[in-house]
Amino acid sequence: MAIKGNLIIGQSGGPTAVINSSLAGAFEAAKAAGVKKIYGMHYGIEGFLNENIIDLKKELKDSADVSLLRRTPSAFLGSCRYKLPKIEGNEEVYEKIFSIMEKYDIQYFLYNGGNDSMDTVKMLSDYAEQHGKTQKFMGIPKTIDNDLPITDHCPGFGSAAKYIATTLKEVIADAECYGPYRTSALIVEIMGRHAGWLTAAAALGGNKPDLIYLPEVSFDPKDFVKRVKEITKKKSSVVIAVSEGIKLANGEFVSAQGADAKKDAFGHTQLSGVGDYLANMLTAEAGIKARAIEFSTMQRCATHVVSKTDSDEAYNAGYMAAQKALEGCTGEMVVIKVESRAPYVTSYSTFDIHEVANVERTVPLEWITNDGTYVSDEFIEYAQPLIEGEIDAYYSKGVPQHLTLSE
Amino acid sequence: MAIKGNLIIGQSGGPTAVINSSLAGAFEAAKAAGVKKIYGMHYGIEGFLNENIIDLKKELKDSADVSLLRRTPSAFLGSCRYKLPKIEGNEEVYEKIFSIMEKYDIQYFLYNGGNDSMDTVKMLSDYAEQHGKTQKFMGIPKTIDNDLPITDHCPGFGSAAKYIATTLKEVIADAECYGPYRTSALIVEIMGRHAGWLTAAAALGGNKPDLIYLPEVSFDPKDFVKRVKEITKKKSSVVIAVSEGIKLANGEFVSAQGADAKKDAFGHTQLSGVGDYLANMLTAEAGIKARAIEFSTMQRCATHVVSKTDSDEAYNAGYMAAQKALEGCTGEMVVIKVESRAPYVTSYSTFDIHEVANVERTVPLEWITNDGTYVSDEFIEYAQPLIEGEIDAYYSKGVPQHLTLSE
Repeated sequence: MAIKGNLIIGQSGGPTAVINSSLAGAFEAAKAAGVKKIYGMHYGIEGFLNENIIDLKKELKDSADVSLLRRTPSAFLGSCRYKLPKIEGNEEVYEKIFSIMEKYDIQYFLYNGGNDSMDTVKMLSDYAEQHGKTQKFMGIPKTIDNDLPITDHCPGFGSAAKYIATTLKEVIADAECYGPYRTSALIVEIMGRHAGWLTAAAALGGNKPDLIYLPEVSFDPKDFVKRVKEITKKKSSVVIAVSEGIKLANGEFVSAQGADAKKDAFGHTQLSGVGDYLANMLTAEAGIKARAIEFSTMQRCATHVVSKTDSDEAYNAGYMAAQKALEGCTGEMVVIKVESRAPYVTSYSTFDIHEVANVERTVPLEWITNDGTYVSDEFIEYAQPLIEGEIDAYYSKGVPQHLTLSE
Repeated sequence: MAIKGNLIIGQSGGPTAVINSSLAGAFEAAKAAGVKKIYGMHYGIEGFLNENIIDLKKELKDSADVSLLRRTPSAFLGSCRYKLPKIEGNEEVYEKIFSIMEKYDIQYFLYNGGNDSMDTVKMLSDYAEQHGKTQKFMGIPKTIDNDLPITDHCPGFGSAAKYIATTLKEVIADAECYGPYRTSALIVEIMGRHAGWLTAAAALGGNKPDLIYLPEVSFDPKDFVKRVKEITKKKSSVVIAVSEGIKLANGEFVSAQGADAKKDAFGHTQLSGVGDYLANMLTAEAGIKARAIEFSTMQRCATHVVSKTDSDEAYNAGYMAAQKALEGCTGEMVVIKVESRAPYVTSYSTFDIHEVANVERTVPLEWITNDGTYVSDEFIEYAQPLIEGEIDAYYSKGVPQHLTLSE
């Protein structure tokens, strides 16, 4: 292929533990193809609009840097939450983006993110087509939520799921330590406001929490208390995995139920998570000692316990996006197809960004079992391969080492 | 030495990531010395009183089992929170314990725990002395809180500190991902109700959170808000490590301040942590977007990221306790002395349990700096060696494998 100019890559939205592996893949593909300048957007399209541009060949001087990059959490380039306005009536934003691209002779534009970020790729490739621009725009999938359509699954999900399965296994063991001498319930609150993929991951790795509640089906508080009470008749430690986004039958978030009434001594509204809310409910209504744990942002940034499968797929998706752009492909996102789940074999292709952008994929209802309180073996067969394999962190001073921007 | 009978070991109090390494050490010392029966208490002294006794040679059949035991979180034998009553007027409890010991010909009794558990060792050795009993009682130190006196530091602390330093490094990177485009504060709530050792660990591994608040000095909410505001003038991401146990100048827990007023829609009292409370305060009083993360029980059970130094010291403390008991030592706890911090060299001895039981050691005030908002280099020199070194987990199905009781 004939290289027509320089390449840029941006990272967008909430980070994942492997978003930098996609950056590594895109960089190495562009470098292998002989691209002269390989740029990074400092803080995504938002930084790009301010011409905050990073020279990646200066940051990634050798393969040791790339290796460390793949062990670095958060977005190495910085990220943003910035949605491009619609083209009509906002042409000046688009003109600015294309003028900066022309200034730096950027012909290839890769954007790594979730649903909203794929919208950026769609808008820019649409604008290019409408205005006879020749630049190529490719999307690289990334989200811990696993809610992008078309692709079998999404880079970032496997590592978050591995963190959840690993940590849940440890906290279940911890919760059981007093055995029959103490009855208690532990609510583990997991990310995923609309899609329950991550919460379902509580069942991976051979873990068996007692109940799993996803946002795809409505949550019945009375039934919940009744079930936990029943379980405590048979075992003393009850562990419940719950999505932050579970809703009542009327569609309201369970987490919003307490908010009105909760003011602290200074009159501040106290927002607490659904886990705390349900723990308090168990104690108040069933007299069960209960507490909540949130996996918070750890589930997306715990690069020290990354899935090798996921990290490699993120790398491949980045590599493939750069290759395809350099071949002239535009307005598409890289997708992963699983050819076989056992043994686990995948292939990569690309798909029209218009079918991907702004579409949210949730857990199939037939994978949610026991009246909405567990997940099926089909889910486990689907997700189990995605958490397998490990990548050793590089430790120094007792903590994993990370690559940081020189500038 | 002449072995006079069998040995038993119990685990007590909240688990640590390396409590099972002490069990491994005690077991291997007893086995090497030729002890016939090596027992474990199932759920500590509470289970022992019900004659819940485990035959450890059946559970730990070979060195592979011991190796996996050292990678197992929580208390392998099960734990308890049970404090022996005072001897006078409660002789029947003591008679029962000694009669069970005699039934199983247990001459050596090891107990692994924190302040309260060392009280158990003290009471039993006192009773033995008062009643002319020949059994030997030894304490093995264990607490993530690092608040046992005499010993330089306590097995369990190093691994919890390593988890905190590792995870904090990851969440700081995550929090910074939007750079100058978003100002926000992150409160990280860390365990330690009376002693700030674990919260101080936020400064290890080269981490530099902006503020660190320990329970040893009183917390001034007004000054806190003012300092965070000042910091946001210079940087967009502010990270604050705070002990769950910080108190106002009047001695009240900060975490208790909101509780009265917080009721949810069903009238349940909502308890939330000090992190949530301070995050809400920052938002309400300074308009700073703020959120809280709690490391919860993960900081004591994350055996997948254990400190090798700590694990080895836990093993050695268990080994030494068994050796000393077999030599006839009683009413003492194993203590660690640091001969040199660089290079890190330690020695082990034992100390009168009466000087240890129920005594709580806090962070020296001279190690708390900047008007109570940071820790000194002396603390870092003290604690840094304790988090160093790693032990690979044994992964299968994408998650670390653990040893479980056969019965």
